[in-house]
Amino acid sequence: MPVGEHWNKSLRLLGAEAVLASLADARVERPEALYAGNMLCGQLSNQQNLAALVADYAGLRGIEAIRTEAACASGAAAVRMGWMAVASGLMDVVVALGVEKMTDAPGGRTTTALAAAADAVYEGEHGISFVALNGLLMRRYMHEYGYEHDDFAGFSVNAHANAVHNPNAMFRKAISPEAYRRAKMISDPVSLLDSSGIADGAAAVVLAPTAHAQERGLPAVRVLASSVGTDSVAIHDRHETLFLSAAEISVQRALAQSGLRLTDMDFFELHDAFTIIATLSLEAAGFAPRGQGVRMAMEGAIALDGSLPISTMGGLKARGHPVGASGVYQIVEAVQQLRGEAGQSQLPHCRVGMTQSIGGSGATIVTHILGS
Amino acid sequence: MPVGEHWNKSLRLLGAEAVLASLADARVERPEALYAGNMLCGQLSNQQNLAALVADYAGLRGIEAIRTEAACASGAAAVRMGWMAVASGLMDVVVALGVEKMTDAPGGRTTTALAAAADAVYEGEHGISFVALNGLLMRRYMHEYGYEHDDFAGFSVNAHANAVHNPNAMFRKAISPEAYRRAKMISDPVSLLDSSGIADGAAAVVLAPTAHAQERGLPAVRVLASSVGTDSVAIHDRHETLFLSAAEISVQRALAQSGLRLTDMDFFELHDAFTIIATLSLEAAGFAPRGQGVRMAMEGAIALDGSLPISTMGGLKARGHPVGASGVYQIVEAVQQLRGEAGQSQLPHCRVGMTQSIGGSGATIVTHILGS
Repeated sequence: MPVGEHWNKSLRLLGAEAVLASLADARVERPEALYAGNMLCGQLSNQQNLAALVADYAGLRGIEAIRTEAACASGAAAVRMGWMAVASGLMDVVVALGVEKMTDAPGGRTTTALAAAADAVYEGEHGISFVALNGLLMRRYMHEYGYEHDDFAGFSVNAHANAVHNPNAMFRKAISPEAYRRAKMISDPVSLLDSSGIADGAAAVVLAPTAHAQERGLPAVRVLASSVGTDSVAIHDRHETLFLSAAEISVQRALAQSGLRLTDMDFFELHDAFTIIATLSLEAAGFAPRGQGVRMAMEGAIALDGSLPISTMGGLKARGHPVGASGVYQIVEAVQQLRGEAGQSQLPHCRVGMTQSIGGSGATIVTHILGS
Repeated sequence: MPVGEHWNKSLRLLGAEAVLASLADARVERPEALYAGNMLCGQLSNQQNLAALVADYAGLRGIEAIRTEAACASGAAAVRMGWMAVASGLMDVVVALGVEKMTDAPGGRTTTALAAAADAVYEGEHGISFVALNGLLMRRYMHEYGYEHDDFAGFSVNAHANAVHNPNAMFRKAISPEAYRRAKMISDPVSLLDSSGIADGAAAVVLAPTAHAQERGLPAVRVLASSVGTDSVAIHDRHETLFLSAAEISVQRALAQSGLRLTDMDFFELHDAFTIIATLSLEAAGFAPRGQGVRMAMEGAIALDGSLPISTMGGLKARGHPVGASGVYQIVEAVQQLRGEAGQSQLPHCRVGMTQSIGGSGATIVTHILGS
């Protein structure tokens, strides 16, 4: 469903609609389990046990239902759990959902709640917001490697250009490098156009053995790898401030699982919640050396016709970032690319792609590799 | 670790200590994953991404780490996930943790946060607390089946008697039926001695193939079944107010998985957060007909020397109920019984037992069957 400000839809309704859409797409009536990724239901909606609630509202009362949480990677964690249930042969058909309702909370509360993705004792306690933490990272990166703020423009320009034709995108509007330059600063050097916005959204995918799709004549997309890596939650505890070691770990695990190499990837749906995080993801995954990730944006390598397209349907920046849902939107978009259903954002010769979702400033990183 | 008011231990420390204790017990240095069950970290500690945080503080930076949440069944859900990872052969050794820090929040906030286990829109919105919801259930049960408040005394007396020798129990004090009768009413007819208290705690178990234990000469306990069933979150949406259909579903699934019958169970560690819930659990699991569960307490069937011992180490009532941790405490205690390490609470001839954890007033119910 479209990412946006859904004032007329409750948390449970957002979730149930996405679940039902995924079941219709996969021609499934009743899955065996629902794994629901969500970060903020307790803090913003005073609602826990969300997986059971959504299962019931989707007409699936009785099935196994568990919520997964790994901050902004909660949705990807649900896909990971769903994959585990099916790949193991324990279950046949499950649904992985990511759902988040961020707009309907009293002023300021969403920002406070998002700070819970940081270390509450050593970071949050001092009142630093999550945006400000990313401001510190970006400033440090610019200082260490000698970049200007303008050098990051390519990430935002690319994401917005790719969102224009995505009906699920929140910001379907192309922006110019000039607009990026003029954007309002929100936590220097992170400007409004470096940062994803606050949004509601839900996305779901059905996981089943490939035979399920074949029997129904549906275009199956295979999960070639699923992995999770972790790092310290507090940035100051990392061994290297500007390197996402959890991303490196999870990418290496995923490559080992799939027997593929980075050069096999036709695209990379990365976690561009902030332009600095897109930069660091490219480096930690191994697509660029340390200090060179931002060059991929400067040189256009990340465009639809570049060597490694990213944010092909708008990414977190322009499709929108309903935090616990984003990891599943990435999977849905990768499936669209691999099925050849990505419309005007469609990549040619698209056979294998990587998705990566990040919880906190790099604490929990979930990587999937999908193939057609 | 003991359940109690751990004013000197933070959420992360509680979790890390339990993880390290479980690793030492199983002679494991580095598990592949940590699944951490917790309900309230976002609401009470403004801390999300708890699994990665605890993994790091336990010296396990880098491993897969995901939090599971299903209200008060969060810990049992972590065991379920861990079992899935190992039983499927995807991983060799994982840790399932349940951890909760409830005491260190400003006045009233814990009660409000616990109400998130109910339906926020149709129950919580009206200001009803979780205790009050259970008061409604108990009143209805007494009305429907013609019981007095005193008839429930056996649950509380049994739980407290069994907690006396459990070093991890919060209330190591036997109580008399007379004390139960005199207990302060907190949400009529739920008195202080019908209800589990607010507590901190953490418990963890290592899950691995049985060969792991055999090679190390350790007493392995096998997981014979693991299952989850769900129902509506709001009580008024249930098909039958006084029947926990999610418990029936998950018990039937667990029996089918294990090939066992209810009569094979040497004990039943049930979710006695309230005496009424203990009653309804016995009925939904099939140990008693509708309206007869409370008779098992009146007649002593639930005692250590009864036909179906419950709360053998104190249960949620007297061992204590740090909500997201309780499901793992149950597993730990079942393991102690099956290993013959339950001290003065030890059951004779103990070979197979069932544990059951409940999220909400019966929305998510996780059942495990363990065997020596």
